[in-house]
Amino acid sequence: MELKTARRSGGRSRKSVRQSKKSIDQLEWGIPYNTDNFVEPLSEEGVNKVHNATMQVLEEIGIEFLNEEAKKVLSEAGCKVDRNSDNVKMDRSWVKEMISKAPSEFEIFPRNINRSVKIGGRNMAFVNVSSPPNVMDLDRGRRVGDFESFKDLIKLTQYFNCIHLAGGYPVEPVDIHASVRHLDCLYEKLTLTDKVCHAYSLGSQRVEDAIEMAKIASGLNEDEFFSKPRIYTNINSSSPLKHDHPMLDGAMRFARKGQPVFVTPFTLAGAMAPVTMTGAVVQSLAEGLAAIALLQYINPGTPCVFGTFTSNVDMKSGAPAFGTPEYIRATQITGQMARYYGLPLRASNACAANAPDGQAIWESLNSLWAASTGGVNVVYHSAGWLEGGLIASYEKFVMDCEVLQQFQRYFDPVISDVGQDSLAVNAIKEVGPNGHFFGCDHTQERYTNAFYSPFLSDWRNYEAWEQDGAEWTHQRANKIWKDILKEFEAPKIDIAVKDELKSFVDRRKSEGGVKTDF
Amino acid sequence: MELKTARRSGGRSRKSVRQSKKSIDQLEWGIPYNTDNFVEPLSEEGVNKVHNATMQVLEEIGIEFLNEEAKKVLSEAGCKVDRNSDNVKMDRSWVKEMISKAPSEFEIFPRNINRSVKIGGRNMAFVNVSSPPNVMDLDRGRRVGDFESFKDLIKLTQYFNCIHLAGGYPVEPVDIHASVRHLDCLYEKLTLTDKVCHAYSLGSQRVEDAIEMAKIASGLNEDEFFSKPRIYTNINSSSPLKHDHPMLDGAMRFARKGQPVFVTPFTLAGAMAPVTMTGAVVQSLAEGLAAIALLQYINPGTPCVFGTFTSNVDMKSGAPAFGTPEYIRATQITGQMARYYGLPLRASNACAANAPDGQAIWESLNSLWAASTGGVNVVYHSAGWLEGGLIASYEKFVMDCEVLQQFQRYFDPVISDVGQDSLAVNAIKEVGPNGHFFGCDHTQERYTNAFYSPFLSDWRNYEAWEQDGAEWTHQRANKIWKDILKEFEAPKIDIAVKDELKSFVDRRKSEGGVKTDF
Repeated sequence: MELKTARRSGGRSRKSVRQSKKSIDQLEWGIPYNTDNFVEPLSEEGVNKVHNATMQVLEEIGIEFLNEEAKKVLSEAGCKVDRNSDNVKMDRSWVKEMISKAPSEFEIFPRNINRSVKIGGRNMAFVNVSSPPNVMDLDRGRRVGDFESFKDLIKLTQYFNCIHLAGGYPVEPVDIHASVRHLDCLYEKLTLTDKVCHAYSLGSQRVEDAIEMAKIASGLNEDEFFSKPRIYTNINSSSPLKHDHPMLDGAMRFARKGQPVFVTPFTLAGAMAPVTMTGAVVQSLAEGLAAIALLQYINPGTPCVFGTFTSNVDMKSGAPAFGTPEYIRATQITGQMARYYGLPLRASNACAANAPDGQAIWESLNSLWAASTGGVNVVYHSAGWLEGGLIASYEKFVMDCEVLQQFQRYFDPVISDVGQDSLAVNAIKEVGPNGHFFGCDHTQERYTNAFYSPFLSDWRNYEAWEQDGAEWTHQRANKIWKDILKEFEAPKIDIAVKDELKSFVDRRKSEGGVKTDF
Repeated sequence: MELKTARRSGGRSRKSVRQSKKSIDQLEWGIPYNTDNFVEPLSEEGVNKVHNATMQVLEEIGIEFLNEEAKKVLSEAGCKVDRNSDNVKMDRSWVKEMISKAPSEFEIFPRNINRSVKIGGRNMAFVNVSSPPNVMDLDRGRRVGDFESFKDLIKLTQYFNCIHLAGGYPVEPVDIHASVRHLDCLYEKLTLTDKVCHAYSLGSQRVEDAIEMAKIASGLNEDEFFSKPRIYTNINSSSPLKHDHPMLDGAMRFARKGQPVFVTPFTLAGAMAPVTMTGAVVQSLAEGLAAIALLQYINPGTPCVFGTFTSNVDMKSGAPAFGTPEYIRATQITGQMARYYGLPLRASNACAANAPDGQAIWESLNSLWAASTGGVNVVYHSAGWLEGGLIASYEKFVMDCEVLQQFQRYFDPVISDVGQDSLAVNAIKEVGPNGHFFGCDHTQERYTNAFYSPFLSDWRNYEAWEQDGAEWTHQRANKIWKDILKEFEAPKIDIAVKDELKSFVDRRKSEGGVKTDF
């Protein structure tokens, strides 16, 4: 009883952010710092073998660069560029030299510099779900993504402190024409969130617009803005062994301006990559390192992140599978290789399930533990992913954030403190064999912050839970996102900055945005 | 298309057990062997501090042994036994000497010696859910456990190859009077399963009956039977700092016969143990080591397992919580200490959720990853646990087995093979930038066993899944347990042995079983 009173009187304030109107008690902003031993499936000899095989692919097989500018640069750098094709072969000593120029750790500064994110080292940052074409919730079922759901999910991205970067569109707003979609979307991202923003590498004009809008939102002049990483892009190879024109174009534009580039081959073993997991990792490394080497040649020191997306397909249907045993090992192995090359690593909170059910959660948890044990620095699609990335789910977003908070707390070293007071021999003596610890001073002094307090888990017994409606996790999550959206308040932004953003969008729209063939 | 044909022609047989009538394709019997680096939250100095605090509790505070025989033995051994209470203080050098006599690895042999289980080292064995008073399934909801559901869950325990030990009653059959319950239950366990059996330490007569029945089932004579570990018990301390009479009695009977004893303090931080996690671990170690020291004095070399059940309560309600960040760290820390003392470690697949939903699965997955990263050797309650152990769930049983199989596969070193063929440079060369890997020889030669094949996960796309009924994981699990029970075939048993078991049960029942006060 005492405890409840004490709690009600505000005991929790130290560990939670109290917002003016608040839907849930959540943990404060903070990037988890992974102090754990990593799981390393490969021996040192194994790492060397994977490295050698990767270099063999780059030297003897080559990667296709479907971009004349990239080929010109690579030719100038001394790579063997085939005149009759897009094939480029790279010498291992050159690749290693280039890769060594990439920083192993860097920081990205969004318009709210209090939301800057360190990438690399032992940091583990979380990104919202990115790029699904469909959206789903319990009330409306699955449907094609639209601008309304895009904005809803951007608000959830801003709301949850455990989401550190606003990645790609949390759902594709198909109701906005592709010629101007990037303008509307970035406007909302830059005003509804103050977190680090991503820009798609889908054509030079979109990239330039995105960088310009991020610059306007920052309120900084050109020199100040480009003096640090402010915005980032992610490119995917067209596996096997290819980088396409717009991705390379965007990556090179970012590199020239010193802005970070994530390079993420999408290597599904048995489909676009070898059926063996180490083979799929080799191909993924070759594709990724080739692009990063190019970017380092263009602008040495450009912040680059190696992205792993190596998983297996279902051999019955060809469908991609995620969070599988093979996926976990591929992530851990890629972690070893990323550390070998001194590159920050990106992976994902991936699952193949079609509903926010048991399967979705075990696949997600396996993906997150793969990230944690593999030393992953940036976890894409951390919240909201379903159906192998084809669905953005409102309920899964909330469920994932509960789990992300648990990881954040898991990495708080205070849990494992071995100071005399924590070892509690005096408390054990005081309570003795016939007492209990609820009432003792040792407990009273600590109980408000002793344990992680979930916003979604229901720890009550069956009777209390049943009396209150017997709601399953996804049903409780459904109520929570509605509360959050109802009470959402956009982060502060200077009105002049907002007007300038709006003017930019209006002008670019009046110019027709970006040419499309439809 | 080719692939499907090949698969249909029996390609999967190498990795799956084909039973005469079979409900699912499951992995073959095998104890996962954990080769991973363990996560060790404590430094060497931290381990020493936890050890010293534990020894301080044993030397200065003492443990209560509510059993005259145990006190007599401990007094004889030189411990300080208080004449006016049950308090026993132990010298650290004596405790360490006793603990050092316990084997760090041993093997238990059930009536089917092909189902023997190695405990300790890097082995990781799984036990079914044990001891809930209630049972639940989607059709009938939650209800009090009965003999029918007891038998159902024993059949699931036998059916799944990923369950290695038949632990306590998978649900308490409350419709059978306590005086004879152990006789009926053990008869079913020993005939419906051929796996390692557990006996409850709930009074001397029950223990003696259980050992006698296991001996009859083995078909061995007395000397042969007791020449090796054949059956085991688990005792819990009455935290804080107490061991009660029947548990100690059972443990000592097992020790005298060289049969394994698991000692599992139930130390919920903030309730029966200090609110700090390292403090709760210290108390748990003191309670557990005290009992193991007693058993080693009685019969040096008795196989003993340290059981951790350290978690935290919900400070709002006092309800126990599981799979929390604090639980994970406590498990990992106890793993470090178990290795320090050279003892095998038991933990659990625990959750607090009231339904087989998202929360249940993230709590379970956190518990299993705690076990995996903590070096746990025996995972109790691996399949079927809900509501902090108060519910045995049919659907959760099936869902957990899917996840256990994934761990089994995760620990298969073949995934991380770095042989030249696995590194697949030739396959990458052959397929080139414009092909895909489905059809190449490298894939064709490997695809049947390349990836883990789930029996419960649905990896199809949304359209196919929806057309087939859009069933969530627990709904699919519901169908699977019904299929399994319908097609269940009991393992072989010699008819004479079965008759002898039946006669024993009949005789003991005619004698009134065990006296109860109701």
